[in-house]
Amino acid sequence: MEQPLLDPFINATVSVIQTMAGIKPEPGGAFIKQDEHAFGVVSGVIGLASDTLRGVMIISFDERSILKIASKMLFEEFHEVSSDVIDAVGELTNIIVGNAKREFSEKNYIFDMATPLMLKGHDLKISQFVTGITTCLPFTIEDGLFRLEVNFCEPRTLFKKSHF
Amino acid sequence: MEQPLLDPFINATVSVIQTMAGIKPEPGGAFIKQDEHAFGVVSGVIGLASDTLRGVMIISFDERSILKIASKMLFEEFHEVSSDVIDAVGELTNIIVGNAKREFSEKNYIFDMATPLMLKGHDLKISQFVTGITTCLPFTIEDGLFRLEVNFCEPRTLFKKSHF
Repeated sequence: MEQPLLDPFINATVSVIQTMAGIKPEPGGAFIKQDEHAFGVVSGVIGLASDTLRGVMIISFDERSILKIASKMLFEEFHEVSSDVIDAVGELTNIIVGNAKREFSEKNYIFDMATPLMLKGHDLKISQFVTGITTCLPFTIEDGLFRLEVNFCEPRTLFKKSHF
Repeated sequence: MEQPLLDPFINATVSVIQTMAGIKPEPGGAFIKQDEHAFGVVSGVIGLASDTLRGVMIISFDERSILKIASKMLFEEFHEVSSDVIDAVGELTNIIVGNAKREFSEKNYIFDMATPLMLKGHDLKISQFVTGITTCLPFTIEDGLFRLEVNFCEPRTLFKKSHF
């Protein structure tokens, strides 16, 4: 994925977490996702769709980072990934993609957002039904790590198995 | 969710699985989802989005049903939920929602489809960041069960926590 298509996600992530939790995340170097293992303990997922683009953004937190961010967001000390913490993941996912969508629209990439989902499970694998690459964007905060995974494709490039 | 909004999903599910796997699934009675536990062993997820609708469809299979359906789809006997079986889940999810989308467009419900995801994990919980209800549609085949979960809302009805 080209850098201009990553910038709106990076900018939105830094600004939303700084605004909502008072924590400035440090973006690391982007890399291509090579396997299906979900990072961390909880993920927010949001589908992106228009007649010219299909995509998805996943934000996955390790336990330390989401407990810290949710505690600062909700003014309450969390020690486990409770339903309030999971709701905070949904809220962050929704607002980050909403902010990125605005920056994308200025670059003439237009899409609508599907309903956000929050995923929590052991040994979770998330596969994407596309031929295109998924780019990982790691972020560091003082107390932990989280990661964005983004994928955009044109509708016609969706994966087709040869036997159909 | 009103029955007219469920029918396109039911019709598409029955017709796609009958066409692709030669198996006719029997729909059961719809009910409202009460918890976050994912049904079965593997799920396909697809976000639905337009400027007037946000939604998601999840199709979750128990092990027996997806092994049977994938074996018949791919002309190969599967005994575990391999990456080929997971790809079959993505393919089914994509085609079922594509077919439902066509029937919805005849009813003037217009939306685009996001990238399909396939989820596999132990003790998986899937939460939705909406106030609206999620409707479960169970299906039976001779060898197992699977279930659709669908949710549509207008963009403005997305859940807002009172402290924001």
